[in-house]
Amino acid sequence: MNWRKQFIVAPGAKVDLSNILTDYTGAFDVTEKDAEKAKKQLKNNKKKLNELQTQLYGEHKRSVLLIMQAMDAAGKDGTISKVFGAMNPQGTHTVSFKKPTERELSHHFLWRVRQHEPSEGHVSIFNRSHYEDVLIVRVHDLVSEEKWRPHFDNIEDFWAARMQEIRDYEQSIARNGTQVLKFFLHVGKDEQLRRFWDRVAQPEKNWKISNMDYSERQYWEKYQAAYEAAISATSTEQAPWFIIPADHKWFSRLAVSEILIDHLESLGMKYPEPEMDADEIKKKYFGVNNPGDKPRFDLI
Amino acid sequence: MNWRKQFIVAPGAKVDLSNILTDYTGAFDVTEKDAEKAKKQLKNNKKKLNELQTQLYGEHKRSVLLIMQAMDAAGKDGTISKVFGAMNPQGTHTVSFKKPTERELSHHFLWRVRQHEPSEGHVSIFNRSHYEDVLIVRVHDLVSEEKWRPHFDNIEDFWAARMQEIRDYEQSIARNGTQVLKFFLHVGKDEQLRRFWDRVAQPEKNWKISNMDYSERQYWEKYQAAYEAAISATSTEQAPWFIIPADHKWFSRLAVSEILIDHLESLGMKYPEPEMDADEIKKKYFGVNNPGDKPRFDLI
Repeated sequence: MNWRKQFIVAPGAKVDLSNILTDYTGAFDVTEKDAEKAKKQLKNNKKKLNELQTQLYGEHKRSVLLIMQAMDAAGKDGTISKVFGAMNPQGTHTVSFKKPTERELSHHFLWRVRQHEPSEGHVSIFNRSHYEDVLIVRVHDLVSEEKWRPHFDNIEDFWAARMQEIRDYEQSIARNGTQVLKFFLHVGKDEQLRRFWDRVAQPEKNWKISNMDYSERQYWEKYQAAYEAAISATSTEQAPWFIIPADHKWFSRLAVSEILIDHLESLGMKYPEPEMDADEIKKKYFGVNNPGDKPRFDLI
Repeated sequence: MNWRKQFIVAPGAKVDLSNILTDYTGAFDVTEKDAEKAKKQLKNNKKKLNELQTQLYGEHKRSVLLIMQAMDAAGKDGTISKVFGAMNPQGTHTVSFKKPTERELSHHFLWRVRQHEPSEGHVSIFNRSHYEDVLIVRVHDLVSEEKWRPHFDNIEDFWAARMQEIRDYEQSIARNGTQVLKFFLHVGKDEQLRRFWDRVAQPEKNWKISNMDYSERQYWEKYQAAYEAAISATSTEQAPWFIIPADHKWFSRLAVSEILIDHLESLGMKYPEPEMDADEIKKKYFGVNNPGDKPRFDLI
């Protein structure tokens, strides 16, 4: 299966989430046995991912921005930990975007994310992102009319302009060498509730939940609509969205890893040319004049 | 074995690195079998470490700063990847301090590290650190007389003042809830050369080396002296140094993991009190009025 092709949102496509299965598992059956198979494949992928990231780091030319968006309990944190955690922490930078601070709110909505763009050779991972500004902010109507009215005839134009700004922003960093991949973990409403139940039923997980998790469920349809609008408007060739069926964690994690690996492999990365002459060093410091010579360790 | 006690530098102790074995392996023999045993123990430790970090993150009260210092090829990068990599990237932040930029040089030497202090619940990992300002900077005499002369009678007083500033700085963040642990990976001069040989002999590792790696070896004794001075002056109760024998990677990684775990366990961390009433949520959203009731999933 070509994971990338399977889950990518083609630029310009109109997304209808209700038509996309949340419990899809491709060639895998929903059995212990197949879940184990998927986990094993993920384990191999983690090694590959680590190697590819080392290449990215060594090459020090391009960078990667991974954006994770989803409804609560869809598996963002787990994916970051269990998939992206395979990369060397030295080359990665993970940021959770929470409720904006007063200071952040007093800036352009892209201000706070810009500061966390990956530098060359690095991977930035966004747990939530600037997309919240067209998701929760839209669902709860958090932009005052005072703010948008001077520039737009109606609020719809305001949202459309934000999407355009996001598109422009992502394309600009893509042109600067940043690979942008965006994942929407698509979880079912019922599955979310089951996961909430697990959290409330297990005392040691209680600290992870708040009343808001539950009360937000009443806005489920509004969120889905906001996601559809955002994903449809911002999946571009340079910064594509992937919609990942997320009812089965072993499947969603595997899918994310496959897509990321596929993308990194397609870059044709090369380690940089060494800045020194290896033969000269072998000669000078190890007394190796010909390939067959044994190195000496008493010269320096 | 109490790893912490074994390798800690007692506050006020005068360190003599030539008296500390680089190839020490404690109760382990230097055999395949024992190396495997150590690796297995590390694997278990990584799980523990992940759990403890989740607690730190959940508690959201204290933070941890891990400082890695060592001669080249002693294993800093590997330790970060293979030990600290076990933690959830979401709660960690790794920074490699390279040659300072012009902008960094135009600030106080602590300016660039301060920006990377861990926030509550987080772990910052410094690959090199402000200690470079009393190590490479001291070995190569990189502070101009113009800079220190107005304030000090001689350069030794200048270095002593820097150490005092470091001590004060680390104690101030410790008082603010940051656990500071500093690791010096103590590798032998011969072992370093063997590792350099590996890098130069394997073409795919050539990009990692530069001529400087080799030419710096002539300053080995000066570096050891600078390390001795820095470690002796700055190992405090609040921010202790650990000198880790590093000729055997499987041993040094295990030692670092043991010390970190020991320290985290000693904090007596607790998950925060949940901000909601679990029983009320069970009742309201799942129709569970009594502990034995089956949850309903059709209410919200």
